Parts: sequence; C-alpha cells; structure tokens
Amino acid sequence: MTSQLSIAIAGLGTVGQGVVKILQEHAALLTARSGLEIKIHAVSARNKSRDRGLNLQGIEWHENALTLASLKDVDLVAEVIGGADGIAYDVCKTALSNGKHVVTANKALLAKHGVELAKIAEKKGVTLAFEAAIAGGIPIVKGLKEGLAANKIQRVAGILNGTCNYMLTAMQETKRGYDEILKEAQDLGYAEADPTFDVDGIDAAHKLVLLSSLAFGVAVNPDIKTEGIRNITLADIDYAKELGYAIKLLGISEEKEHGILQTVYPALVPLTSALSDVDGVNNAVFVQGDYIGNVIFEGPGAGEGATASAVVADIIDIAAGRTSFAFGVPVSAQKKAKFLSLNERVGEYYLRIEVLDESGVLAGITKELNKNGISLEAVIQKPPRVLETATIVACTHEVSEKTLQKAISKISEMSQVVHNPVVIRIEAF
Amino acid sequence: MTSQLSIAIAGLGTVGQGVVKILQEHAALLTARSGLEIKIHAVSARNKSRDRGLNLQGIEWHENALTLASLKDVDLVAEVIGGADGIAYDVCKTALSNGKHVVTANKALLAKHGVELAKIAEKKGVTLAFEAAIAGGIPIVKGLKEGLAANKIQRVAGILNGTCNYMLTAMQETKRGYDEILKEAQDLGYAEADPTFDVDGIDAAHKLVLLSSLAFGVAVNPDIKTEGIRNITLADIDYAKELGYAIKLLGISEEKEHGILQTVYPALVPLTSALSDVDGVNNAVFVQGDYIGNVIFEGPGAGEGATASAVVADIIDIAAGRTSFAFGVPVSAQKKAKFLSLNERVGEYYLRIEVLDESGVLAGITKELNKNGISLEAVIQKPPRVLETATIVACTHEVSEKTLQKAISKISEMSQVVHNPVVIRIEAF
Repeated sequence: MTSQLSIAIAGLGTVGQGVVKILQEHAALLTARSGLEIKIHAVSARNKSRDRGLNLQGIEWHENALTLASLKDVDLVAEVIGGADGIAYDVCKTALSNGKHVVTANKALLAKHGVELAKIAEKKGVTLAFEAAIAGGIPIVKGLKEGLAANKIQRVAGILNGTCNYMLTAMQETKRGYDEILKEAQDLGYAEADPTFDVDGIDAAHKLVLLSSLAFGVAVNPDIKTEGIRNITLADIDYAKELGYAIKLLGISEEKEHGILQTVYPALVPLTSALSDVDGVNNAVFVQGDYIGNVIFEGPGAGEGATASAVVADIIDIAAGRTSFAFGVPVSAQKKAKFLSLNERVGEYYLRIEVLDESGVLAGITKELNKNGISLEAVIQKPPRVLETATIVACTHEVSEKTLQKAISKISEMSQVVHNPVVIRIEAF
Repeated sequence: MTSQLSIAIAGLGTVGQGVVKILQEHAALLTARSGLEIKIHAVSARNKSRDRGLNLQGIEWHENALTLASLKDVDLVAEVIGGADGIAYDVCKTALSNGKHVVTANKALLAKHGVELAKIAEKKGVTLAFEAAIAGGIPIVKGLKEGLAANKIQRVAGILNGTCNYMLTAMQETKRGYDEILKEAQDLGYAEADPTFDVDGIDAAHKLVLLSSLAFGVAVNPDIKTEGIRNITLADIDYAKELGYAIKLLGISEEKEHGILQTVYPALVPLTSALSDVDGVNNAVFVQGDYIGNVIFEGPGAGEGATASAVVADIIDIAAGRTSFAFGVPVSAQKKAKFLSLNERVGEYYLRIEVLDESGVLAGITKELNKNGISLEAVIQKPPRVLETATIVACTHEVSEKTLQKAISKISEMSQVVHNPVVIRIEAF
C-alpha cells in the first residue's frame, strides 16, 4: 500500500454526498487518524448536471457505477447505491473479484448475498465492511466483531428502524392514530411514499439477520419471521403504558439451547429498560454477552451525516490496515446452526380482546387460557367504549408461542369475542 | 508473527483472573475471531499458594511482574496490577521498550504516563491498548478511535464511576442520606474502605483526561478541576427531581472556541436525557460528533467479567493485526491545545440557599443576582424545615462560572443566609 488510499464512490445520493463532504472537510484529521491520505479518485451517478453542492474537481465521473469496480487506480469502492440486486450487487461483486476493498451501507444486498460476497473478499484477501448497514452511524458492527469479541454473545436486540420508532413514539406522545402519524412521517421525509419496506419490518429484518450472523458466528439466514407495526393502535400503546410498557418494533436474535431464534415484531418493552426511552428516529442495539453483561449502543440510525460517518469509519479502518472478517469469523468457520421457528418462542404476551358486554365473558376466556396452562399476570377490564362491547386487556405469564396461538384461536371462535384478539409479545431487558 | 500470540498476564487479581478464564473458556471462539491461537505463556502474582480457582497448568509463574516484560517468548504483556507508578509503570515501560505489545486497564498510570508510554510504543512499532481503562467493558476507546473516527468530536461526557453512580441512584431511590448509602456501598463491595478515590471524583478524572485526549487529539493533560459527590444531599436530589433533573457525577470534556474545558463534577441532568436513566453501577459515555450527532454507549463500568472482556478485546485486536495509535493519532500529531479553567464555563446552575425566614430575603438574593446579570429560570421557595430557616431553590439562565461565583460569594455574605449556598452545575444533552 502506498501513502494514499484511492477510493471510488458508487452513488451520489444523500449518503454518497455525505461521504464526499466528510472526506474533503476532514482530510487532515483523517490522515492523522489513519496514517494515509484518503483520495477520492472517482465517483459515479447518473445525472452529472444535478447540483449536489459538492466540489468534484479533479475527480473522475462515471455514469456507469460498474466501471468503478474495474478502475486500475482504485483500492476501495464504497457502494452507496442500494438495492438487493442489480447494479449494487454487480459493483460489489466485481470490485471484490478485482481485489478491491468494498465498503457498503446496503443491508438488503448483504442480507441476500452477504455470504457470497464475504467468500470472495476472503479469497481475494480484501475487506468487505458494512458498519453503515446496521443502525446507521452507531458503531455496532465494530462493537460486535471487535469491542465485545471476548464474549459468547447470548442475545442481541435492537430498535433498528427509525421510521417505525418515530411513528410509535409520535403515536404515544401525541395520542394520534397510525394513519395520521404515517402521513406526518411522510411529510417530514421520515417515511417513503410507499412505506412498506419500513412499516412491515422488512428493513429491520435485513439488519437483524446481519446482527444474528455477527453475534452468533453463523451464515446470514434471510429467512426470518417478520411482523410490522401496521396493526398497532393507539389503544394498545395506551394500555401498554398503563401496564408499565412502551411498544417498540424490535429485531431480536437469541441463541437458545436448540438453535437460534431471530424475529422482528412489535413488542412491549418495560418502561424501566433503556430501550423504552429510545425515542424518535433514533436506533439502539442491546447486546448481552457472557462476560460483559448487557451493553446498549444508542444513536442516529439514519440520515446523511450519521450513515456517511459509518461509511467513512470503515474506509479509515481499511486505510489504517485494520481488517476483520466480514461477519467476524471466516465463512468456513461459521457454525451450522439450526434456526428455530417463532412457534418455539417462550415468553410473556399482551392480549387485547374486544368482547360483547355480557357477564361471564372474562371467565370464559380465562377458562380457555387455563385449559392450555396459561395464567395471567395482569388483567384490565375496560368499560364499553363502543356500544355493547367491552375490552379485556391481559398479560400472560411465560408460555410458548404455539400454546398461546392455539388458545387464542379457540378464543377467537367464542361467540362473544367481537374481533380477532390482538396479541403482542412482551420482551424483558 | 506466528500462528500463535504468546501473552503474559501481570497481576492475578479480579481482572487478571477474568482474563485467564475468558482466554481458556473461549479459546476456540477467540481463535476463529482473531485468526491466531492466544496462548498464556506466563503469569505473575505475589502469592502462588492462594487458590484462585484457575487452571494454571503449563503456564510459567513469576513472582516478580517485571520479569514478564523481558521474557523472550512473550509477544504481549497484559498489565492488570494497577497504580499510577511503581511496578505497573515499570512493567509497561519495559515491555514496550522490549518491543512487546502492552494491554492495560490502568487509568491512573495512563493519566500520568500515557504520552510517554505511547511514544515508546510508536518508536518500537508495537501497540499500547487500554479499552478496559475507561468505562470497563464498554467499547468506548474503540468507539472514539475507530467507530466515530470520521467525526470532529465536539463534546464527550460520561458517567465514569460506578461507585458514585450506585450511591446517587440509591440515594434517589431509597431516600437515604449519603453516609448511610456509602456504608451500604462499602458492605456490598461497591466502595472501598477509604472511598476517596471514587467519591472525590479522582477515578472519574483519570478516565476523563484519557477521553479528552482520544476525542480531541491532544496530549493527555492530567490537570483537571475535580469535584466529587461528598456534598450532595438527599435534599438536592429531591429538589432536582422536582425541577426535572437527576444528579449524576459527570466527566465532561468539550472543545470550545478558545480551548478545551475538561472537568469532573456532579451535575443536574434532564430526566428526558438517556444519561439520567443510567442507574446503579452502570457507566455510560455520551459523544457528540459533527456528522454523527449524538451517540451513547451504556454498560457495566467495572467488575471482573466486564473489565476482562475489554482487556481480551484488545488482545484479540492485536492478535488479528488490528492496530491503532494509543490515543488515536501519533503523539507527534497531537494538537497543542489550550485548556480552559472552570471559570470559563458558561452554563446554567442550580442553587440552594438556606435563609432566615424573614420577608425580603428572596428579593435581596434576586437583586444580587440581577446586579451580575444573572436571571432565574425556576424558583422554588420551601417553607421552613428547620426552625426559622427557609430554603430557596433556583435555576439560573446561562451565565459564566466566574460571574456566578462572584454573585454567590456576595450572597453568602448576606446576614440572612445561613449556610454557604449550594451550587450544582446543570448540563444539557
């Protein structure tokens, strides 16, 4: 390596622009920290005439991002285009195959092709790094691979999607419903016109399967049960608070005796836990290790500055010669793990059941639960809000998902039960 | 380097024992993560006959820790003896001078001799690492040097002493006074028989001057104004809560226009900030960077497992060939910074003034404050608790420390003021 690290940036959207700004503004600082001059040799984007407020003098411009992956003078390609396949995949794969380091913020790509790309990187002796792919600027990839590397990780859980966390926080704080808050989030630019990717938990799931791989030393397994926040109502947020909880969209992965359970769903989180206080667009990741105990990393999970900060951190590491395996261990050393189905979850549950306001309904529900060995920890029975219906809110003691769902399916068949019962999992930290 | 990293552990106290346990229990895992076998070649401690519950078969035993620093077959010495001078200093300096990497948990040593040791490490081309020296197991050294390296750091603040945080939390939660809680902390092993080092903020100050150096790229400056928690009363904790704050012992370092202000003092922290929720023996570090925004790292700040986790993380990094400058940049590249005196702080203040229960006292105090351009944001006047005296609690708007102290000195001369007024700084996050 020379006294210069020559890089190419594929994509000049928000994150790409942030990367250029940091590298230019902090050039001297980054050289002091990394020991090398980090030089932007080339960039790519489709529309050259657009004013991005960047000084790109002396930097090669390529319309086709794939060109960057083969430029002779480039040591490292930063891919900030996005998308699980297509050009982003081609750029990363070609760059690695050509012996160039790759830094990417692309969780969708890594969730799908991470293992393949990691293998190529290892074969070619280059680095594949993706700090920006999980929880934006928070250095959690480094935290898991290096900072907490002395530990057998037992559980990792995170608030991984800023859009959902903004929406849930705003619902709780302003007492407005899902649809109104979604519109507000869209107006503020926190949610896309088509919010599917965020609100259905897909984005969080991409990040969580990467966290699983990093935490437990297994190959990325994109097969994950995912529930989003579309069905979370203001009523549930209020009842949860009354019971001492906040509702958060969590990605959780845990290594249990018989395998790894990785899931994304909204959950009740105790108000006493630090995760319940993570508000707005912030992200946070909780890690439990056998020697360290519990650690939490909290910070901005998205945005130009935060994401670019993580991309540049990876570039600095590579410039400084600090390398690690993409997923913490070589692909060949990854454990063959069994992944558990959500049915094998054991935990507590929040239930909200709308019933006809008749006597004996609660007794009937309790009986059905008891028949399945499910006992209740807390019950709130609310007077009718709508004509002739009442609301029963309850928290169960520990029970398996399978048993709980069986009981709930019976309960929903009861003639006095007006809607399908609402079931939200409770997570302790 | 061979396929083995040969290490020596100087000190077999709590942390040293934890290091041995992790290295033995997680040997296969650590080899997968680091690429090398980490072999304990030698240990040192004074009393060989003491049963530590460790398997030390096949490991050389030396009574004199200094011997480890010169063992031919050792690549790395982990120093977990402690103390700013004496044997710990000799071991680290000699090991580095002999071209061995040094990992240490010793903040007192680094606060005093860090620059000298870093210079030797650079000259010899070896690594001096000290993740365990700040906030125990929390990977904040790595976070600042690597994870957030893309940023110009603007401010770093931390709850850096678990003993003090335990005591302040317990006072708040159990409504018991300082002396009673100190005794409890001593009984629980959270505080030493002589608690000076913790409760006077000395330990926090050692960590804070290291954080300053890492954050701002300056040489460690052990000259720091330090106030501890001895004078914090239950009354102040209660009033603070009434005003929307918790009291925490904070180490704070900020790069201002004219220099760096580094301090340790108890402060009022808004209940809405994540730092206010850091309870018990936990530590937390808040970092503000120009691109990332605000990030918080929270976790166990002490204890065998957590501290050993950080020591081993450093060992793994060295085994994996991931090196960095001890303080983030080479000693020769450290900025010559001006350090500001506490008098140059500008901020808000909490005041508690015990006065004779006479009419016009509040007006007199307000007048004295106004004369110095100090206006109040909140005032609580409490009815007499003790015969004939009343309590005035107030929060100021922003004012310089110098002006505030001048006004307070005038106020304490007023005939109706019974005790020296209590002044606690308010910090926003």
